[in-house]
Amino acid sequence: MNELAKMTIAAAVAAGAILLLPLTGVADEAASPIFGVTIPQGYRDWTLIGVGREDGLKELRGIVGNTTAVNAYRDGQLPFPDGSVLVKLAWKHVPIDGLDGAFTSGTPTTVQVMVKDAAKYASSGGWGFGRFVDGKPADEAQHRTCFACHDAHAKDHDFVFTHYSR
Amino acid sequence: MNELAKMTIAAAVAAGAILLLPLTGVADEAASPIFGVTIPQGYRDWTLIGVGREDGLKELRGIVGNTTAVNAYRDGQLPFPDGSVLVKLAWKHVPIDGLDGAFTSGTPTTVQVMVKDAAKYASSGGWGFGRFVDGKPADEAQHRTCFACHDAHAKDHDFVFTHYSR
Repeated sequence: MNELAKMTIAAAVAAGAILLLPLTGVADEAASPIFGVTIPQGYRDWTLIGVGREDGLKELRGIVGNTTAVNAYRDGQLPFPDGSVLVKLAWKHVPIDGLDGAFTSGTPTTVQVMVKDAAKYASSGGWGFGRFVDGKPADEAQHRTCFACHDAHAKDHDFVFTHYSR
Repeated sequence: MNELAKMTIAAAVAAGAILLLPLTGVADEAASPIFGVTIPQGYRDWTLIGVGREDGLKELRGIVGNTTAVNAYRDGQLPFPDGSVLVKLAWKHVPIDGLDGAFTSGTPTTVQVMVKDAAKYASSGGWGFGRFVDGKPADEAQHRTCFACHDAHAKDHDFVFTHYSR
C-alpha cells in the first residue's frame, strides 16, 4: 500500500470517528443546563394534552405527555407522580390563505420539556426543565427563568400550565 | 325459585339488555349524515399532526391522525392512502391569567373527522366527513359545507388543511 492510500484510509477512519461522536457523546451535550433534562425519545407520538397560543411570539403550541403524565391527568392526580414527562412543541403561527383569523402551525421554534422527580428537583417544585432549539439546549440564563414563571402562574396545578383538554 | 326471585332476575336481564343497547346499536345514530363517518375509537391517543387557531370562533384546535395518516405525512405521500383518518379536536380558547396574549385550550366544542376512501367518497375528493358535538353528529346542512371549504382552500394538499408540524 502506498503512502497516499494509507493516508486516505487514515483520513476515512478519522472522519468515521468524528461522524460517530454525536451518536455516542450526545447525552451530556444535549442535556439542559442546571437540570440535565434531555429530549425524551418517542415524544412526537405521545398523547396530546392540550394546545396553546402565544401571540407575543406569534406562536402556536401543542403539549404532549408520556403515559405516566396522561394517566395522572385522566385520573385527576395532583401532584404529578415521579416519571411524568411533558413536552411542549412550539411553532410559528401561519395565517391560512383566504380564511380570515385562521392560523395553522408552521416552522418549529422550541421544544420544551418538564420532567417530574420530586427529590431530584426539590428546589423547583419537583420539576426539571429543558428548553431546546433545533435539538440543542438553550443557555443557563434561559433555564433560570422556567420555574419562576411556572411558580407565579401555575402553582395551584403542580406548576403545570396546561390542563387536559377532552 | 319463587315468583319474586324470577321477576327480579327477569328485570335484571331486561335492564342488562337495555344497558347493552348503546354498545351494540350505536353505529347508525352516531354516524354523520351523507358520509356515515363515526368518531374513531382511541383517537384521543393518536399522534399530533399540528395545531390551529380560529379567532372567529375563539377556538384552538389540535389535529391528530391514525398510523396510516401519520406515516403518509412523514413519508410525504400524497394523496393520502385509503384508511387514513384525521381528527380535529376543537376547544374554546381561554386567556391565561397574568400572561398577556397567552391562551390555552378550554371547553371542547366539536370533534371533526376525515376518513379517506377514494372509491366510497369519490365525489368529495376521496374523503368522508363527520362533525360531532358532544359525541353526536351535526345535521346534514352542516355536512354539506365540509368539502366545499376543503376544496376551495386545500386542494393542492389532497383537501387537507393541516401539514405535519415537526
